[in-house]
Amino acid sequence: MTFRDMKAAFYTGHDQIEMGRCIPVEPGPGQVQIRVSHCGICGTDLHIFHGALDHRVTPPAILGHEMSGTIEALGRDVEDWSVGDPVTVMPLDPCGNCLACKAGHGHICEKLNFLGIDSPGAFQSYWTVPARTLLRLPPKLPLVRGALVEPLAVAFHSVRLGEIQPGENVVVIGGGPIGMVVALVAKAAGANVLVSEVNPFRLGLADELDLETVNPNSADPVELMNERTRGAGADAVFEASGSSAGAEIMTQLPRARGRIIVVGVFAQRPQVDLSRFVWRELRVCGARAYEYEDFEKAIELAASETMRLDRLVTEITSLDSLEEGLQKMDSGGRCMKILIDCSV
Amino acid sequence: MTFRDMKAAFYTGHDQIEMGRCIPVEPGPGQVQIRVSHCGICGTDLHIFHGALDHRVTPPAILGHEMSGTIEALGRDVEDWSVGDPVTVMPLDPCGNCLACKAGHGHICEKLNFLGIDSPGAFQSYWTVPARTLLRLPPKLPLVRGALVEPLAVAFHSVRLGEIQPGENVVVIGGGPIGMVVALVAKAAGANVLVSEVNPFRLGLADELDLETVNPNSADPVELMNERTRGAGADAVFEASGSSAGAEIMTQLPRARGRIIVVGVFAQRPQVDLSRFVWRELRVCGARAYEYEDFEKAIELAASETMRLDRLVTEITSLDSLEEGLQKMDSGGRCMKILIDCSV
Repeated sequence: MTFRDMKAAFYTGHDQIEMGRCIPVEPGPGQVQIRVSHCGICGTDLHIFHGALDHRVTPPAILGHEMSGTIEALGRDVEDWSVGDPVTVMPLDPCGNCLACKAGHGHICEKLNFLGIDSPGAFQSYWTVPARTLLRLPPKLPLVRGALVEPLAVAFHSVRLGEIQPGENVVVIGGGPIGMVVALVAKAAGANVLVSEVNPFRLGLADELDLETVNPNSADPVELMNERTRGAGADAVFEASGSSAGAEIMTQLPRARGRIIVVGVFAQRPQVDLSRFVWRELRVCGARAYEYEDFEKAIELAASETMRLDRLVTEITSLDSLEEGLQKMDSGGRCMKILIDCSV
Repeated sequence: MTFRDMKAAFYTGHDQIEMGRCIPVEPGPGQVQIRVSHCGICGTDLHIFHGALDHRVTPPAILGHEMSGTIEALGRDVEDWSVGDPVTVMPLDPCGNCLACKAGHGHICEKLNFLGIDSPGAFQSYWTVPARTLLRLPPKLPLVRGALVEPLAVAFHSVRLGEIQPGENVVVIGGGPIGMVVALVAKAAGANVLVSEVNPFRLGLADELDLETVNPNSADPVELMNERTRGAGADAVFEASGSSAGAEIMTQLPRARGRIIVVGVFAQRPQVDLSRFVWRELRVCGARAYEYEDFEKAIELAASETMRLDRLVTEITSLDSLEEGLQKMDSGGRCMKILIDCSV
């Protein structure tokens, strides 16, 4: 790559991405500069693209937080890292001072700096970040797959908070990029997983990944689950659709004292059957992002060949095509995870 | 009492109670006949009175399940009980066969027979029930207070599921009969309790019981709680109002990873800020009725003099005045717990 090729994609306003030159930031004390390899487009990037997070993101802004790369340069006082190390970034920079941080929950810090949202992200050739946000990628883990570690960590976090046990009956509502990895991780945890999704492309992809599916437009997931559990219902339900239909069905699926884990992003406040919570003593928890241990587990799983994670990548394209990629995701068509190859 | 005086109050249709003769049921094998002393009017009785539970309650029906009394007669095969024993009834008769029962959660049995709703209740002179539903009242516990054990057990159950710890900041939304006992039990558990309520009579009563209160019409409970916790928020919030305003505020009050315990009955499905669940990783659980240990603890607390429970009783009246009592509760005026003296 020549200096001329150093690129960055800038969110410059609603539904607009403009290409510009990447000005590599010299790593300061405790920082490293990463040569970005791949960076996935996240649903959150799409929300930002549509202006939904303009209270946090001021254009022009460089997005991107699902990435892999190699260390290009080290700042002062950086130990344990060397130029050339393959890495990913856990893009959370908590304040360390608020009560959530002090309680050990930095991932829900009240003043969280989420890299790629609240500060510049990885949709560029070189990205400078605090060394404390780095995680090492094993040599056998291809960098292209390394960009899937972040969404995989989201899944590990939600499955951990949901306390999924082997043999449990689990329903994942919504087979998008997050729902799909949640389903894969829950299955890897030994659960019997059913994915509820309406998009035929996504259903086909789930089939290929040996995930059992139901299309609620043609069969009732609640009836299906009740048949299988002699009327009891699911042990746990992940709401990963962010839809009012999902909020409706999530209270109908669980057994008495069953769990609901909300991972979907809700643009509107849905109506929720709170009486059902009382009647069946349901438990609900929200799951946001990940903690360090989730990232570690995600790396381990991504490095193993037990899961055909790569199958989730429906397209690898260049930085110049980021806007096109965002539009494609929006269309809800034949795509799952789109990766940007930032090296070209 | 002469035979002529034996009375029963019958729900005969929407907003209608008619008096009739109590026909004492001979206790069969494993049953006891109780001479009813007192029976409280529950919010559920009010819902039934208005026809909201007509799918479960077929008129003419005898309601009432918050009671105390003494054993009048024993059926065959009843051990451990004697005529004259002071008792209360845990009014749950689970099927024992469904999966909730088999998992040890008989109180959320799928085919639960709730005495006083699904089968005849205690608004009558004599009530015959399975001996297994009995709990002994200590001699020092006045029978009039014994009728408060059942709602107190609801409070113990919800405080137990909410895992309330000493020193925690707790908000109870709604200072009705259930919210008030939840607040008292949470306070007895060592929590700092704030009751949010709009009704001036209830606010006054809470003051008398040394419960701290806030009227959301004049001060913002969220701001108040944030001030006290340096912006963190409440450790736990009990939703005991069953109102859409309650469903709104319940997600704003808790700290990151705080708990919400839903005990209120929602006639409609409220809009709920599910994004807030994710953002702060809130946890929610529904709490329904009680389990045996909650009843035992409620009796213990009712027998102690540490809590001025009797103060919650705003009126003791006769069976003939049951309809009037229901109407008074409906008016939302100057009443908290109305007890029916079934002995007169």
